[in-house]
Amino acid sequence: MGYKIYPVDLLEKFCLEAFTKIGFSQEESQTITDVLLLSDKYGIESHGMQRLVRYHKGIEKGLIKIDAKPEVVFETPISAVIDAHAAMGQLVGKQAMELAIEKAKKSGVGMVSVRNSNHYGIAGYYAKMACDQGLIGFSATNSEAIMVPTYGRLAMIGSNPIAMAAPAKPYPFFFDASTTVVTRGKLEIYNKMGKPLPEGWALNKDGKDSTDAPDVLKNIVAKNGGGIMPLGGSSEISGSHKGYGYGMICEFFCSILSQGLTSNYVNQGGQSGTCHSFVAINPNCFGNPDDIEKHFSKFLQELRDSPKAEGQPRIYTHGEKEVAAVADRLAHGVPVNENTVKEMIEFAKFVGIDYKEYFGDFVAENSNMFSGNY
Amino acid sequence: MGYKIYPVDLLEKFCLEAFTKIGFSQEESQTITDVLLLSDKYGIESHGMQRLVRYHKGIEKGLIKIDAKPEVVFETPISAVIDAHAAMGQLVGKQAMELAIEKAKKSGVGMVSVRNSNHYGIAGYYAKMACDQGLIGFSATNSEAIMVPTYGRLAMIGSNPIAMAAPAKPYPFFFDASTTVVTRGKLEIYNKMGKPLPEGWALNKDGKDSTDAPDVLKNIVAKNGGGIMPLGGSSEISGSHKGYGYGMICEFFCSILSQGLTSNYVNQGGQSGTCHSFVAINPNCFGNPDDIEKHFSKFLQELRDSPKAEGQPRIYTHGEKEVAAVADRLAHGVPVNENTVKEMIEFAKFVGIDYKEYFGDFVAENSNMFSGNY
Repeated sequence: MGYKIYPVDLLEKFCLEAFTKIGFSQEESQTITDVLLLSDKYGIESHGMQRLVRYHKGIEKGLIKIDAKPEVVFETPISAVIDAHAAMGQLVGKQAMELAIEKAKKSGVGMVSVRNSNHYGIAGYYAKMACDQGLIGFSATNSEAIMVPTYGRLAMIGSNPIAMAAPAKPYPFFFDASTTVVTRGKLEIYNKMGKPLPEGWALNKDGKDSTDAPDVLKNIVAKNGGGIMPLGGSSEISGSHKGYGYGMICEFFCSILSQGLTSNYVNQGGQSGTCHSFVAINPNCFGNPDDIEKHFSKFLQELRDSPKAEGQPRIYTHGEKEVAAVADRLAHGVPVNENTVKEMIEFAKFVGIDYKEYFGDFVAENSNMFSGNY
Repeated sequence: MGYKIYPVDLLEKFCLEAFTKIGFSQEESQTITDVLLLSDKYGIESHGMQRLVRYHKGIEKGLIKIDAKPEVVFETPISAVIDAHAAMGQLVGKQAMELAIEKAKKSGVGMVSVRNSNHYGIAGYYAKMACDQGLIGFSATNSEAIMVPTYGRLAMIGSNPIAMAAPAKPYPFFFDASTTVVTRGKLEIYNKMGKPLPEGWALNKDGKDSTDAPDVLKNIVAKNGGGIMPLGGSSEISGSHKGYGYGMICEFFCSILSQGLTSNYVNQGGQSGTCHSFVAINPNCFGNPDDIEKHFSKFLQELRDSPKAEGQPRIYTHGEKEVAAVADRLAHGVPVNENTVKEMIEFAKFVGIDYKEYFGDFVAENSNMFSGNY
């Protein structure tokens, strides 16, 4: 595998030009770019530039409607359901969380479920939006089925991440994780690197453990069976039914409450139909927000200060690695897999921008060409 | 190990007599008994009769105040904080969920956090209360620290279960799981059986994997280090940080929002200080509740009908096993570990009731006497 390092600014300029060129407004392009870049800045490679190919293909195939106007189809003072009408996920995502935040500020809580959307990037971006305004933020999304339920052999549930962010010092609590052991993006990265998967991640088409990334990904695309295990693995002894349960909680808030497509129907028949959930809670529902933040910060510090396992230098609290990653990426640039750069060049050609301005005469140092459409 | 089978009615009568004898009213005793028996009826052995010894010891040591009057110390139309004043967990738990349900019926959502309480039984009991009234129910509780954070060696977080229940046909969705791989109750059962723990469950005092139940439990009690792994094990490769994250979400809703004791302070210095969370959401915040229930029931059926892994006869949805367990326990009685029966007899002696009326001249068939105070 080979990686190239690019400055954050350059990637931002590239995304902005690509998304405006394809038909999004300046403001819309900025939103989409912000979500993607936050992922790369946070060190979540699987959901940053690595995801561009999906948006490229989604727009090309008509799954993503550039000029869609998301519509509030049900509303109460503390909740809403939005039909995205196949809009770009990041755009309806931001709009939905803004609505949840507005309701939380006025009524204490805001819960917004969205149906008929597309891939929206990292769930944590939206949770962070609420946190940046002093609220407790949650977001979750379903996705094309990839999680095999405990004792099954067909993927029926998405990677179904749940994210939460809450104010704390010296940095906010920020948790963003799929309810599978890993995301499909991680499998794609192993596939691009040509490396076998760690054990305990994936299942083959018969529902048996597999470390063969290309085979697992191929079977997922072809709906042959197999996929990724729920957090907790494939057996109840290790808690498989728990990861499966968290995946269901995500599914409930996204596709059930919005009456949209459940993961097993997402990305089929020429539509995406992805569903999301956004919740903002005002801490003033429970007391003085400053006192609550202080109490939380104390506990987070106690966790970081607690005794380490033999051979482990530190204990992290959620959000700490992201803070370090942002500082690193801003100072030293973002490492981008060469195969991802190739996809970005394809995207540039598709929308008609001069990729050489960004990537020069790009030549991959590694010939392990990625050729799947995952 | 040996198990004795007792009819549900007999166990109910025993608990009712024991709890009224110790000073609770008839109604209070019924509530406590209902929570404990639901656990045994659901097949969750770790939180039914097996837990009686804890209440016995808690009352004996003064951690549980029989005549405590829980107090609402903060309230909004959609939320409240209750100080339990060291009340029995089941009693303040039921009161708090009733308040959340009342708010959800009136305002769409009710969120109640409780501090300064005691062990409250299974979280699912309270989630089910909301579900029984057509609402979406959540409950969570912190506990004495037992989860070792990723890369740590000291337990800092409780088993921190999160439960959710939501209406569906032919039976409701019911999810109730600790955010650790397993609960302390499971370790206690292995300890009572004299069996080694499965790998991937527990850590010794240095933060290394251990299958030695007595050693792990002893170290937990003595705060020597070690404990149970988060769901996802002890490494980030298998998702340890995710289980740790869910444990933190539980902690946030319980001890942070109520400004009570975090798990690392629970059950120390002559007080319990356990904190809980109760959330009820009215599905009419999102549309027609019948339509939502129908949509959910369809997906649950699709999951059960989906292809099985090689060698697996069926896929369960959450709550299905519990329905089967209730039917079985009502028809055939509840299997109770002999060591648990001994504890029940101790409890009977402590409160001064005639245990022979319930258990006759009980003689354990197995001499592996349980002697810890876990």
